[in-house]
Amino acid sequence: MIKVPLSNIKVPRINVVRRKRMGLPGAIPGSFLIMENAVPSKIFVFSYKTDFLEETETESVEEAFAFTDKHPDCFHWVDVRGLGSQEVLNFIQQKFGISNLVMEDIVNIHQRPKNDEHNGYSFIVSRMLELDKGLQLNNEQLSFLLFDRLLISFQEDYKDVLDPVRLRLRKNTNGNIRKLGPSYLMYALMDTVIDHYFSIINRIGDEMEMVEDHLYQKPHKYLMYRIQGVKKLMIAMRRAAWPERDKINDLMRLNSPLVNEETRLYLRDAYDHTVQIIDLIESMREASTGLLDLYLSLMSNRMNEVMKTLTIISAVFIPLTFIAGVYGMNFAYENPKTGEILRGNMPELYIENAYVYVLVLMAIIALAQIWYFARKGWFKN
Amino acid sequence: MIKVPLSNIKVPRINVVRRKRMGLPGAIPGSFLIMENAVPSKIFVFSYKTDFLEETETESVEEAFAFTDKHPDCFHWVDVRGLGSQEVLNFIQQKFGISNLVMEDIVNIHQRPKNDEHNGYSFIVSRMLELDKGLQLNNEQLSFLLFDRLLISFQEDYKDVLDPVRLRLRKNTNGNIRKLGPSYLMYALMDTVIDHYFSIINRIGDEMEMVEDHLYQKPHKYLMYRIQGVKKLMIAMRRAAWPERDKINDLMRLNSPLVNEETRLYLRDAYDHTVQIIDLIESMREASTGLLDLYLSLMSNRMNEVMKTLTIISAVFIPLTFIAGVYGMNFAYENPKTGEILRGNMPELYIENAYVYVLVLMAIIALAQIWYFARKGWFKN
Amino acid sequence: MIKVPLSNIKVPRINVVRRKRMGLPGAIPGSFLIMENAVPSKIFVFSYKTDFLEETETESVEEAFAFTDKHPDCFHWVDVRGLGSQEVLNFIQQKFGISNLVMEDIVNIHQRPKNDEHNGYSFIVSRMLELDKGLQLNNEQLSFLLFDRLLISFQEDYKDVLDPVRLRLRKNTNGNIRKLGPSYLMYALMDTVIDHYFSIINRIGDEMEMVEDHLYQKPHKYLMYRIQGVKKLMIAMRRAAWPERDKINDLMRLNSPLVNEETRLYLRDAYDHTVQIIDLIESMREASTGLLDLYLSLMSNRMNEVMKTLTIISAVFIPLTFIAGVYGMNFAYENPKTGEILRGNMPELYIENAYVYVLVLMAIIALAQIWYFARKGWFKN
Amino acid sequence: MIKVPLSNIKVPRINVVRRKRMGLPGAIPGSFLIMENAVPSKIFVFSYKTDFLEETETESVEEAFAFTDKHPDCFHWVDVRGLGSQEVLNFIQQKFGISNLVMEDIVNIHQRPKNDEHNGYSFIVSRMLELDKGLQLNNEQLSFLLFDRLLISFQEDYKDVLDPVRLRLRKNTNGNIRKLGPSYLMYALMDTVIDHYFSIINRIGDEMEMVEDHLYQKPHKYLMYRIQGVKKLMIAMRRAAWPERDKINDLMRLNSPLVNEETRLYLRDAYDHTVQIIDLIESMREASTGLLDLYLSLMSNRMNEVMKTLTIISAVFIPLTFIAGVYGMNFAYENPKTGEILRGNMPELYIENAYVYVLVLMAIIALAQIWYFARKGWFKN
Amino acid sequence: MIKVPLSNIKVPRINVVRRKRMGLPGAIPGSFLIMENAVPSKIFVFSYKTDFLEETETESVEEAFAFTDKHPDCFHWVDVRGLGSQEVLNFIQQKFGISNLVMEDIVNIHQRPKNDEHNGYSFIVSRMLELDKGLQLNNEQLSFLLFDRLLISFQEDYKDVLDPVRLRLRKNTNGNIRKLGPSYLMYALMDTVIDHYFSIINRIGDEMEMVEDHLYQKPHKYLMYRIQGVKKLMIAMRRAAWPERDKINDLMRLNSPLVNEETRLYLRDAYDHTVQIIDLIESMREASTGLLDLYLSLMSNRMNEVMKTLTIISAVFIPLTFIAGVYGMNFAYENPKTGEILRGNMPELYIENAYVYVLVLMAIIALAQIWYFARKGWFKN
Repeated sequence: MIKVPLSNIKVPRINVVRRKRMGLPGAIPGSFLIMENAVPSKIFVFSYKTDFLEETETESVEEAFAFTDKHPDCFHWVDVRGLGSQEVLNFIQQKFGISNLVMEDIVNIHQRPKNDEHNGYSFIVSRMLELDKGLQLNNEQLSFLLFDRLLISFQEDYKDVLDPVRLRLRKNTNGNIRKLGPSYLMYALMDTVIDHYFSIINRIGDEMEMVEDHLYQKPHKYLMYRIQGVKKLMIAMRRAAWPERDKINDLMRLNSPLVNEETRLYLRDAYDHTVQIIDLIESMREASTGLLDLYLSLMSNRMNEVMKTLTIISAVFIPLTFIAGVYGMNFAYENPKTGEILRGNMPELYIENAYVYVLVLMAIIALAQIWYFARKGWFKN
Repeated sequence: MIKVPLSNIKVPRINVVRRKRMGLPGAIPGSFLIMENAVPSKIFVFSYKTDFLEETETESVEEAFAFTDKHPDCFHWVDVRGLGSQEVLNFIQQKFGISNLVMEDIVNIHQRPKNDEHNGYSFIVSRMLELDKGLQLNNEQLSFLLFDRLLISFQEDYKDVLDPVRLRLRKNTNGNIRKLGPSYLMYALMDTVIDHYFSIINRIGDEMEMVEDHLYQKPHKYLMYRIQGVKKLMIAMRRAAWPERDKINDLMRLNSPLVNEETRLYLRDAYDHTVQIIDLIESMREASTGLLDLYLSLMSNRMNEVMKTLTIISAVFIPLTFIAGVYGMNFAYENPKTGEILRGNMPELYIENAYVYVLVLMAIIALAQIWYFARKGWFKN
Repeated sequence: MIKVPLSNIKVPRINVVRRKRMGLPGAIPGSFLIMENAVPSKIFVFSYKTDFLEETETESVEEAFAFTDKHPDCFHWVDVRGLGSQEVLNFIQQKFGISNLVMEDIVNIHQRPKNDEHNGYSFIVSRMLELDKGLQLNNEQLSFLLFDRLLISFQEDYKDVLDPVRLRLRKNTNGNIRKLGPSYLMYALMDTVIDHYFSIINRIGDEMEMVEDHLYQKPHKYLMYRIQGVKKLMIAMRRAAWPERDKINDLMRLNSPLVNEETRLYLRDAYDHTVQIIDLIESMREASTGLLDLYLSLMSNRMNEVMKTLTIISAVFIPLTFIAGVYGMNFAYENPKTGEILRGNMPELYIENAYVYVLVLMAIIALAQIWYFARKGWFKN
Repeated sequence: MIKVPLSNIKVPRINVVRRKRMGLPGAIPGSFLIMENAVPSKIFVFSYKTDFLEETETESVEEAFAFTDKHPDCFHWVDVRGLGSQEVLNFIQQKFGISNLVMEDIVNIHQRPKNDEHNGYSFIVSRMLELDKGLQLNNEQLSFLLFDRLLISFQEDYKDVLDPVRLRLRKNTNGNIRKLGPSYLMYALMDTVIDHYFSIINRIGDEMEMVEDHLYQKPHKYLMYRIQGVKKLMIAMRRAAWPERDKINDLMRLNSPLVNEETRLYLRDAYDHTVQIIDLIESMREASTGLLDLYLSLMSNRMNEVMKTLTIISAVFIPLTFIAGVYGMNFAYENPKTGEILRGNMPELYIENAYVYVLVLMAIIALAQIWYFARKGWFKN
Repeated sequence: MIKVPLSNIKVPRINVVRRKRMGLPGAIPGSFLIMENAVPSKIFVFSYKTDFLEETETESVEEAFAFTDKHPDCFHWVDVRGLGSQEVLNFIQQKFGISNLVMEDIVNIHQRPKNDEHNGYSFIVSRMLELDKGLQLNNEQLSFLLFDRLLISFQEDYKDVLDPVRLRLRKNTNGNIRKLGPSYLMYALMDTVIDHYFSIINRIGDEMEMVEDHLYQKPHKYLMYRIQGVKKLMIAMRRAAWPERDKINDLMRLNSPLVNEETRLYLRDAYDHTVQIIDLIESMREASTGLLDLYLSLMSNRMNEVMKTLTIISAVFIPLTFIAGVYGMNFAYENPKTGEILRGNMPELYIENAYVYVLVLMAIIALAQIWYFARKGWFKN
């Protein structure tokens, strides 16, 4: 039933999302500078309508946005991967008049999920969570600038997690994704992100079942580490899921002209999913607390067992050893001159078969104690 | 007082409701495909009014809905059991113009209880909970499409849990169930589901009393497992009960034209019941935490008892054994040539009756210690 | 200071209020049948105004309500005790047009406190709590049908808990109770019920003080049981008190024409009392958690003490016993032929006064250890 | 650093505010009778305006209120101390038309802080908390009847806690206290009461620091008692502080004509203070839980240390004692007739210097074990 | 991996913000007196507009405010450091008509963050938190008086924490900070304060990771102290962060004419940051609870290990010692006169090679026990 080896457990770190401001504390709020370790930007452009699709991959921002101008009757999706090219971001800021604060939030990749409506565009942040094999949580930022006919998305690196949506865009020539414009496209991307939450929850659920199976066999110290790991994952998941729900609720309720009526229906579905995720997270948090209780009570059980073993053996043999010690004393002595034995001292030694009597006495004492412990139920676990 | 054997305990698994999406993450939201392990659909049709009832069982969806057209003045209940027939679901979707998202929720059987109002119909989800003999929780989805004169219900399999309502429909020719239309019928079905919640709570209550009775006798490890089991059931119950309450509140407050005034009164009653269920669940959750505390403190009590046994026996005999050891030393020696005894070494050995004196001394030491422990209350539990 | 004996403790059961539906799950909601173990109804009628009072005790419902018709200018209180007479309840239902759902709630005696306004009457539920001598909680339902000039109250059995109100009705000929009509009378009855809550809280408070006094003396296992008992009582009290508060708030805020302005003032007072009760319950719940912590830490303290005793005695005597063992070895031997002593083996044995030196050495070792433990503070508790 | 002795600790009782109703449960609500142990009333009257002040102390209520009539252009403060004179209270009730329910709340000295507006007057309750030297909490009721130009205050006994306000009234001839009328005077009295909360919190804070200092030295049982004491004080403080805040908020928000605009500003300040008090209480509650965790983990630490001592000593000496025991066995025997030694039995005894070899072996075993335990870190704490 | 030494740990004190009122409890509310240990005030004045900046440092308040009058078209920032000069504060109070209550809040440096709007000015309190090297939290008050074209800030002492803003004011001649007036300047100052919160959280995060790394190596007592320290810091942080958030929300939502539209946008950014801080604090509080659980379960693990060592050694050697004791008894005796051996007593001693047989028996017993413990898994950790 148990297949996962316990070796090489890495307990996930509590993933504190730290705000790394450029320069000193007190740096000018409202200016933006790219992060030090950001990778150069690559730009993928999709111009599409029901019966048309043009894809471009470029590193030149001018080229990218030239394409978007070439097809005025199309919807456009500009997918910027890598936030390390200051000139790309500056170009976008100036072309679309994006606020400095928004640009800062795009490059400072530790924002909470949120939906900020601005003049002519919306700025939306999602968090992409992924578990790697060692149960470490990758927590990346996916931000969107949503315009009337254009969606610009920003990813931290070059990963292909959004590929399924890209595939649908290419193949599903007559589907909603081609028809319903950038707000639906953004919904589809966010839904992909949310789907990952479910798969993470499933993997954590498997981990918890594995831990529980092991616990019932032996409450190993490493299992405790794993429970702690699950708890930390839950804390991190929760910090992402709650504002994700609020954000989608916002998108759904506010009457932003950028989100069309059909998309709103789909957002309700996404909202239901985030509620379900939060539900599951809270349930699993409780269950992980239960695992901890289980571990501790099993430990206490084992301790009890160990102590009972010690007590039974000690209690049985210590009195017997005492009796043996008594008859090992040298009080009985005989005068070698006279051969006279001072029988007043330790007369038992001279009783015939006294040794056998003593052995029998010892057996009786031992059996009495064992009977006593058995009656108290110490031999049943 | 205690009748349930402790053997063969299966601790229920934490029942993570997992969303199993068809295909890859990122599959097209808004398309629907039946689940792999779904069973073929059977269709049961009831056409009824106060003085008329016609029942049909069929597997052909055309036949089923032909019947519903034949009696335009009747109310109709189409009871679809098994969600494995794509053509049945497609037929229903097209005939009544059901949204893709709703169809997806019907076949993805892990929705939370909810009430979604759509154009011309309402989509309502209930969760049917049932405990099997091994305290495993079955958690099935029962969904409804509510129209003006028609109710379509969807069950995952062929179980007869809704039979009592069917019986009432057949026999109670003049009752509300014939008169008040599909919204009352749906209420009656949901009420049957809620009734099951009460019977589950009663069984869990019995389990808890059994565990408590056993605990007071002996804090067995298996009892701890059972407490964990109860806690998991509570988590699962709660995840179903809270949204159930919200759903009924929704149905009651929203002025949907599909729910008539008389039914609304009955929904208030159902609402009271869900509130009572939540109340009970929360109380039992607290009580199960109390059981856990009890278990742990009883364990600690037993450990104390074990340690006291060890300490009393050790404390009494170890000093005595030391004394015996002292008089077992070989310092006293006699010169066999001269017969002279070196009395300077261990003179006690040569005092007449010294052995008896030592035994008396030992007895005094032992009694003093026993008196000391008794005064400290170690012999009282 | 401590007077209550610990013997014969009955831990109260977690009092799960179970909804016992007649017949199968799925029984017709909206029909009502008396409970199996209900006692036959007795009816007490009071017809009163400021200067007039007529009391009747009867088992015939026709007779009872004849009396109420005889004095059209009086207020009437019909006090139905025992819910086992179907015909009585049927009569009342038909005479006053009471909804089936209300009748069901009257006979199913596990409703939460609530206030339902109906056409022409209000249906109000209170829960009467009482502690018996063994700290078991009786939890009975008291329900009211409030009309313009008539109050019908329903009790489960024949107990006289409402007697003080009856007394006031008889004696206080000029008081509010005669003047302010059935809504004030109902308030007076509910206030009597709430007064009992305070007396229960006082008794639980006494219990907790007793447990605490005992705990400081000796953390007995039975005290743990009693703490558990108090916690369960708190859970049950709380389940009654919160909806009681909401109910009274309802009565106070809703502008029901059945509740007059003066009574509303008195209801505010009752509301304050329920708030105070909830306050006290929450405080006592916290305090009972504190008692549990106290018990556990005292247990851990005692364990520590036990272990220290064992360790001190073992640590002192085990090394001494070892030394005695060494000099009990038989290496020193003498050749009886030659009388030669092999002094190379265990020469210490032949040193004059070696025995005394060894005893002194042992004493030094023992004292050194005792000094060490004393310095570590092991002899102070 | 540590100055407070641990002796003579009295753990404060959980101070259950009990409602002691006169007579039986079910006594007439709305009638009032003085409490049994109430002290006779003394009345202190202040009639004042900016340039005028007249003080009177009397026990006659007629005299008291004659004074208030003599100066119609003054504000009046009637300070009633002691609630044991029925005629005083009756007089006040009749003179000002106070509701029976209010009078009952004045004499039943266990009300929560609240603000009830009545026709022409307001009834306000504050709770005066004070810590005595033994950390017992005195919890007294201070109630006010606030009229347009008159304030009547009721204290349980003759204490002078309100003296600072009296002093200001006398000296501060031109201050707000003379100018702003009875609502400001009431504010000044309530502010004095709230100031006491801060000083209690400071004392509890000192207590907690003392306990923590002691804990780091030695986790004494009495410290646990003190932590429990602090927790109980926190529970009691909290029960007073939350409704105090709500009350002041009420006074501040409601547009009562009895509270003038300037006073409202000061009430905002008092409100800030109650919020700060609640903040501090919650922080200290958490910190006291932290102390409890600290105590328990230190206890567990000490237990560990005790067990390690026992284990090291036992593990070192028990095997050595066994070896000594082996060579104390009597298998080696010589035939005194022939002088033949049965060397096949225990030949080691006859090896030259065997005794030394055995001692060396024992030393090696002991050192090996000590090295093993040292490597496991058992000697570092 | 571990670099921080454990020596010299100072556990931070629970930082109870105490309200130290001048004089007795009951001192006149609404008067203000400087604190005893306050330092004399220094005044730094900035008069600035887009292309102009004049800085003055003075201790004379008249001089300071003369400067502010000299440039009527400029914005002014008066930075008062040190609250020990009564005349400075009096001058400000009178010149700008500040309420006594506000002045009291400025000098009583334990206010919660808040925003009070007054006639013509706003009074805002921030709390500057800083961790010193020993993880002690400095918690200082920074208060603002915000006027139309003037900002007065009050710091407790002369620290230069606001220097980065001063730098921007000097250098960023064309930035928002010169253009947007005192409300933006105040935002910039508050943002600097909030930035410090992030750096504190980062340091606490490092501390927690260090503690966790150490814990996995050895659950040292000092680590427990550090966890307690982290928890106390969290309590203090939280008490500052929650009202900080409310304050900024207030500033953002209320339509105060003193805060201009552009600044409001930046305040939304600051609000997001406080929300993120609260999020992080709550996550870290949970994680610190997890560390405590980890510590306790590791302690219990070690205890288990210690006990197992003791039990194995005792269980193996105690029975062997008993056997050795048996054969050390003196029952076998020979009559030196007759040379007759009483073989009935302890005949085993005279069996050839009995000694070897006994040794073999002992080895078998020891091996059996070790095999038993190995099978129970006691040798695996």
